[in-house]
Amino acid sequence: MQKLHVPIKGAPYSITINTWDDKHLASTLSAHIKDDRLFIITNPKLKRLYAKRLEKALPKGVTLCWLSMPEGEKYKTLATCEKLHVALSKNGASRQSLILAFGGGVVGDVAGFVAATYMRGIACIQMPTSLLAMVDSSVGGKTGVDLPTGKNLVGAFFQPKAVIIFTDVLKTLPARELHCGLAEVIKYGCICDKPFFKFLEAHAQQILAGDPKVIASVILRCCAIKAQVVGADEKETGLRAILNFGHTLGHAIESLTGFDQIKHGEAIAMGMVFAAKLSHNLGFSSVDESPEIMRLLKAFKLPTAWPKYTASAYASAMSKDKKATGQSVKFVLLKKIGRVTIVPLLTKELVKCL
Amino acid sequence: MQKLHVPIKGAPYSITINTWDDKHLASTLSAHIKDDRLFIITNPKLKRLYAKRLEKALPKGVTLCWLSMPEGEKYKTLATCEKLHVALSKNGASRQSLILAFGGGVVGDVAGFVAATYMRGIACIQMPTSLLAMVDSSVGGKTGVDLPTGKNLVGAFFQPKAVIIFTDVLKTLPARELHCGLAEVIKYGCICDKPFFKFLEAHAQQILAGDPKVIASVILRCCAIKAQVVGADEKETGLRAILNFGHTLGHAIESLTGFDQIKHGEAIAMGMVFAAKLSHNLGFSSVDESPEIMRLLKAFKLPTAWPKYTASAYASAMSKDKKATGQSVKFVLLKKIGRVTIVPLLTKELVKCL
Repeated sequence: MQKLHVPIKGAPYSITINTWDDKHLASTLSAHIKDDRLFIITNPKLKRLYAKRLEKALPKGVTLCWLSMPEGEKYKTLATCEKLHVALSKNGASRQSLILAFGGGVVGDVAGFVAATYMRGIACIQMPTSLLAMVDSSVGGKTGVDLPTGKNLVGAFFQPKAVIIFTDVLKTLPARELHCGLAEVIKYGCICDKPFFKFLEAHAQQILAGDPKVIASVILRCCAIKAQVVGADEKETGLRAILNFGHTLGHAIESLTGFDQIKHGEAIAMGMVFAAKLSHNLGFSSVDESPEIMRLLKAFKLPTAWPKYTASAYASAMSKDKKATGQSVKFVLLKKIGRVTIVPLLTKELVKCL
Repeated sequence: MQKLHVPIKGAPYSITINTWDDKHLASTLSAHIKDDRLFIITNPKLKRLYAKRLEKALPKGVTLCWLSMPEGEKYKTLATCEKLHVALSKNGASRQSLILAFGGGVVGDVAGFVAATYMRGIACIQMPTSLLAMVDSSVGGKTGVDLPTGKNLVGAFFQPKAVIIFTDVLKTLPARELHCGLAEVIKYGCICDKPFFKFLEAHAQQILAGDPKVIASVILRCCAIKAQVVGADEKETGLRAILNFGHTLGHAIESLTGFDQIKHGEAIAMGMVFAAKLSHNLGFSSVDESPEIMRLLKAFKLPTAWPKYTASAYASAMSKDKKATGQSVKFVLLKKIGRVTIVPLLTKELVKCL
């Protein structure tokens, strides 16, 4: 088992990475359950696949209360949260209760925000089931939901008590979802770790085939980078913003396409290509790194061309980004693979490169 | 002008109490506005009454963006929050933006929660317009909304940057609302300040007549008590719970009557009478203090008898209280006026006294 410490001030926690381990699950839950029930938020598919396994691993005397939400980004809404809040309330959840967020990025973001806001905050453990959630959304305490006007516009910084990653749940993950997770994986290489980027190139086939050892080491490296970044800057006052590489255009694409046609990882893949091209066009990177990034994205079955919308549509969508201030946006530019810089850019200027 | 410091660790702020003062308002806003707009959340009635005065007091170069929500506890919902979130987003509010919560308890709780969750938290200044909000809800950082299953079940601890209290806005407050605020005022006397309780008895007529000096001193004393309590225990892990005196039954009454027939202050008035009687019945107070409390409540035109529901209906409503754990609830009992103690009680036991 690999263990990582996330050094958030006042709310440090651990991430563990291994194959499914009933004992480890039971002992982690035991450490945080204060009554005789565990509230698990998941979706119907995951419940069907893992209910027996989870029931079996429960600490003695603890019963599970299943709270389900539909699958898909379009259910990442305040309305879904309210249904879960009401279900918690009807099932007698108290301030002492513990929520287990068992699912991908949508479940993790929603369940985390529900935990952050139910009775002004109850304990939560994240148990991500998608690669994207394992390497990104389950780590760092960003929780939240979308608005009709934009992604993740409502939320809270709320740290989990622990993150439990069992890599073998990836076996039940649809291939497209695995690819989406790999977009965020490539991102870590781009922003601060060229050798890791090279490792991904060299091990693309093993990764796609789900080689457990390689996958575990990939997850470990990503979590370590993210833990370091969010440990230094929990509330994104500076450094943390580098994690948004590829996300400014990515979020705009998701917003313009209505959140459900193009998946987050796919939008980020397109966004990274754009960011790399823009960086070169603006003179921030002497070499155009976009071909190398595109090659790796393609190896991981990810799209590299963004959908055609007018520049003004993109500019308008980007100006609604959380990183935007008025008409400019803090854009993460690539100096070279492994190094980025954050520069305020006018949205109308940057869309010229589209 | 009176000024009070609220010593919240990491997020200290000041409460100021005086009559309407354009200069003070402008300088407080200036200190926290980072762009050229101020987002004000209020209700249509308050907008009608105070729009001109607020516009006039704005710092130079700042324009107001009005966001309105309907009046009344029944609009203290996640649905209202989402409308405000969307309005903020459509009007280009960014992480740098400032929200001014201008209204009573409902506006303050909703606007505070919207600020706490929009883009995972933007700055907020509370400018309470009801006595209840001035002495209670605007101080201490509890924000949130109701669920169909109970009051304040969704929310966040989120401290404002400042609280500005202009006592003369109470002139436009309906009498019933003033009385409701006085219920919380009496509460402070009950929980920790017998001389203040006596002061209220002695000055009941001036208070009801709106004597500015007496009212200001009443608000100052209440805010000072609350600031001290929440400074010592922001997240209600201990001491802060004493502020819930009268609230366990009070919340149950509001929940059973559907949140809109009986006002919060009225429900708390009934709840305090019940808590005092229960304290004596259970032997925690040697003297039955309920007659003295009832006398003061009646002087302030507040009801003292709770509505008739079955004991099991009350028990069920109370078990949904945030202070409940399983079948028991942390109940604030009166030892004598000016001193309380918190005791876990079984809801089915305590409703026997109803």
